[in-house]
Amino acid sequence: MPVLNSPLLEVHTAANMLNSNLSALELQNNPITPLSNHSAPRYRKIATQLQQLIEQGALPSGSRLPSVRMLAAQEQTSPVTALTALRYLENLGLIEARPKSGYYVRAKSVLLQEPREIVGLNTASEVDLNQTIMRVITAASRPNLIQLGAATPNHALFPVNRLRKLLAANNRTMLDAIGHYDMSMGHTELRTQIMRRYAHYSVLLKPEEIIVTVGAMEALNLCLRAVTQRGDTVAVESPIYFGILQIIESLGLKALEIPTNARTGISIEALELATRNTGQVKALIIMPTIQNPLSSVMPDEHKQYVLELMTARGIPIIEDDIYGELYFELHRPKPLKAWDTTGNVMLCSSFTKTIAPGFRVGWVAAGRWQQEITHLKFTSSVATAALFQITLARFMETGGYDHHLRHLRETFQLQIHRVSEAIERHFPAETCLTRPRGGYLLWVELPKNCNTLQLFDLAMNEGIFIMPGKIFSTSDRFDHHLRINCGDLWTPQIEQALKRLGELSHQCMVDCAEQ
Amino acid sequence: MPVLNSPLLEVHTAANMLNSNLSALELQNNPITPLSNHSAPRYRKIATQLQQLIEQGALPSGSRLPSVRMLAAQEQTSPVTALTALRYLENLGLIEARPKSGYYVRAKSVLLQEPREIVGLNTASEVDLNQTIMRVITAASRPNLIQLGAATPNHALFPVNRLRKLLAANNRTMLDAIGHYDMSMGHTELRTQIMRRYAHYSVLLKPEEIIVTVGAMEALNLCLRAVTQRGDTVAVESPIYFGILQIIESLGLKALEIPTNARTGISIEALELATRNTGQVKALIIMPTIQNPLSSVMPDEHKQYVLELMTARGIPIIEDDIYGELYFELHRPKPLKAWDTTGNVMLCSSFTKTIAPGFRVGWVAAGRWQQEITHLKFTSSVATAALFQITLARFMETGGYDHHLRHLRETFQLQIHRVSEAIERHFPAETCLTRPRGGYLLWVELPKNCNTLQLFDLAMNEGIFIMPGKIFSTSDRFDHHLRINCGDLWTPQIEQALKRLGELSHQCMVDCAEQ
Repeated sequence: MPVLNSPLLEVHTAANMLNSNLSALELQNNPITPLSNHSAPRYRKIATQLQQLIEQGALPSGSRLPSVRMLAAQEQTSPVTALTALRYLENLGLIEARPKSGYYVRAKSVLLQEPREIVGLNTASEVDLNQTIMRVITAASRPNLIQLGAATPNHALFPVNRLRKLLAANNRTMLDAIGHYDMSMGHTELRTQIMRRYAHYSVLLKPEEIIVTVGAMEALNLCLRAVTQRGDTVAVESPIYFGILQIIESLGLKALEIPTNARTGISIEALELATRNTGQVKALIIMPTIQNPLSSVMPDEHKQYVLELMTARGIPIIEDDIYGELYFELHRPKPLKAWDTTGNVMLCSSFTKTIAPGFRVGWVAAGRWQQEITHLKFTSSVATAALFQITLARFMETGGYDHHLRHLRETFQLQIHRVSEAIERHFPAETCLTRPRGGYLLWVELPKNCNTLQLFDLAMNEGIFIMPGKIFSTSDRFDHHLRINCGDLWTPQIEQALKRLGELSHQCMVDCAEQ
Repeated sequence: MPVLNSPLLEVHTAANMLNSNLSALELQNNPITPLSNHSAPRYRKIATQLQQLIEQGALPSGSRLPSVRMLAAQEQTSPVTALTALRYLENLGLIEARPKSGYYVRAKSVLLQEPREIVGLNTASEVDLNQTIMRVITAASRPNLIQLGAATPNHALFPVNRLRKLLAANNRTMLDAIGHYDMSMGHTELRTQIMRRYAHYSVLLKPEEIIVTVGAMEALNLCLRAVTQRGDTVAVESPIYFGILQIIESLGLKALEIPTNARTGISIEALELATRNTGQVKALIIMPTIQNPLSSVMPDEHKQYVLELMTARGIPIIEDDIYGELYFELHRPKPLKAWDTTGNVMLCSSFTKTIAPGFRVGWVAAGRWQQEITHLKFTSSVATAALFQITLARFMETGGYDHHLRHLRETFQLQIHRVSEAIERHFPAETCLTRPRGGYLLWVELPKNCNTLQLFDLAMNEGIFIMPGKIFSTSDRFDHHLRINCGDLWTPQIEQALKRLGELSHQCMVDCAEQ
């Protein structure tokens, strides 16, 4: 059976093939046999059948599985059992849900292994990455690069036209958005919209508990400043978004990197171990939903455990939720803040990844540190531009936000799928790859002898911008990793760039072996 | 001779009176007597005559003096001598130049004494004012206050309509201002415009030396973070803008307050004394042109001295030039940065006081600390919104800026004049008052037994917002001072509020005496 090149266009064919295959299986395995005769529960049996079809290539990547209703009818079981079977496969990473469309076989590329979690715990380190990071970022400002580096989606994906209209309207009607700034901590309309949104995710806030900031970066910066002093240690995920390491470096703090699993997020065992000595760790920065760069999602039980542990040990949690809205399934996981009853969590986010990167508007719900953050925000930048705040509030209010988000998520999911496939085609066979459940970032582990900082230089020479693993850790453990941005629109140039990256990876391995 | 109530409307009458008075004086003093017969130079003699006329009330406040040409003709002397005489009187604070209009007798109110400079040098203090400052600022967010507190002009004074048009045009045509942000340190067009502007004031910069920030506050914050660590001491003017004290407090620094003269700025003798111990003071923050709250202007020789002294002693200078463009005379004084050849001066400013408070756009030319500030800016807020940057650049480029500034300066000068007169009419007789040469702030010294924090509370009860002196120093030396914002448009309500403030000052003195 041929593997289909454009799986999404062939959904119905694939679904039909699945149906015929299921029928064949039904005959072989006699699905009417009572459950009690088998050691495994019914849903596992159905799942195993489907798994075999996928692994044999009978169900190629991208093909749609039957709906819950269809599957239940075919298997003569309840819809609940059918759904449980599908969810089981989803947890295995074999299939994926697409909102309002059903379950699909994941890209064949997911059969590449996931990157290994590095288990060893390092000691807290001073951060000395600024030179490297700024070299990478500065290089990226060159025009006409193939943008596989920075975590910035193509600007065509944002609701630019609607925002322009709203901005134009507010620009005409708001009397004092230009000639005035107020010293309160955010525009009431925007704070109300953010508050309402969080209420859907079980985070109950009052509008005045939300402080509007210049992007999430200002929010994270202020949170760290509120709870640490120079020389203090901050626990972070490993690997971790380099911007957080830069803040830590700029504040003279130390980073204690906690091993983080590409699927389930921070290792709760390692975190427990690392924070046993009371008073040693002054804060935890964490991205429970769609971590950057791993795109991992912490299970709810992990979130609750981390919250309880940190609260009991007196360690403030700074939650970075900037990719949370980009979760691919229908209901996004709750932020960790949802379980916070003592104000120990400072929840930071922004509109940079979802609506308008150019507006530079973020926020923080700072829990117990509300007053400190208010003071720090004033001394840091006084106020955030009102015109953009009100434009964002109106955008959220007029109902376009969810529609836009759905489109964004579908696009990102498809892009990740395509980039993953291209990586599988072109990169060294030992390459490992994350299976993101949201966002638009892929984390790639190359063979150990491929130094990705060297690969970065080779790629930049050919106009391809990637983020080397080096800048995501104070250690050298990710020196053979790289982060790929899947936020740009798929073009033959991107396919070509990924092919070239694969060739350069091979070259890099040879070069490194020779050195 | 009656003192005219609306002096500016009576300019010609006043000038005529002056002319007739001068003629009378000429007869008495025989201006043809050769200069050599007198101990004073010719220009002093002319100046003395004019001074007598002013002090006798023959030339009331607001009346226009004859032009240089007329005065020279009347006095049968050279235009240079006539001009020197007028400048001498200007230095005495008796007359003032108004751009393109000539010299005018200053408001009679300037006959109130100027606030005394407090000479004693305190030791460096930790700053613990945040509670008080935030109490004051928070109170000010109440609607419908008479705005005599915050240093924010009425929004009608900003070129809102032109900015709206430019913003609307850029909103339509800029492809990526919403859906994208770049990680460079500012939009090239804006940096070029700022560079050109500074070239007029002998500050020679390259566009890439200018880092665009979220207002001057972010710039000041980053500069301090670049050169200090928690516990360090920073020399500041005294009194000083409370926002700077808040930054110092938030960074855990100590403030060493240097006595500052209401006319000539920081005491260079005290600064020399305070910075003798090498390594003790880690930075100097200074506002050489239109200091907040004193509106003082440092003479050029003082600037050069301070620059040489600080450079020799290895102390970085953070120059806050936010009011520099609001200097009332034709040519604004050079920033201190103009003499800086070693990169020891970080020049900070913004458009908040001149064009668009609501845009929150400022900048810093960071000299030797360019790279550090670049890093810190990234970790502080990544980037500044591009749409506002380009709008400001186009505004500066299309030539409206100077025209707008002239109008703004004239308005502020008139407002200061009116508020000063009202203060003289209504405040206790011992009140002292600054004579601003730019900006829109008045610094008022009340009798010692009038606690202005108490006055603040009394005034707030009646909807009048003022800034109490308490928040402009870590000491209690300005507890009987207050800052008055003259940036709001003159209305009977403001006159009424000033009258009421005067009454409350009297009441406050009685209350304090009774306690």
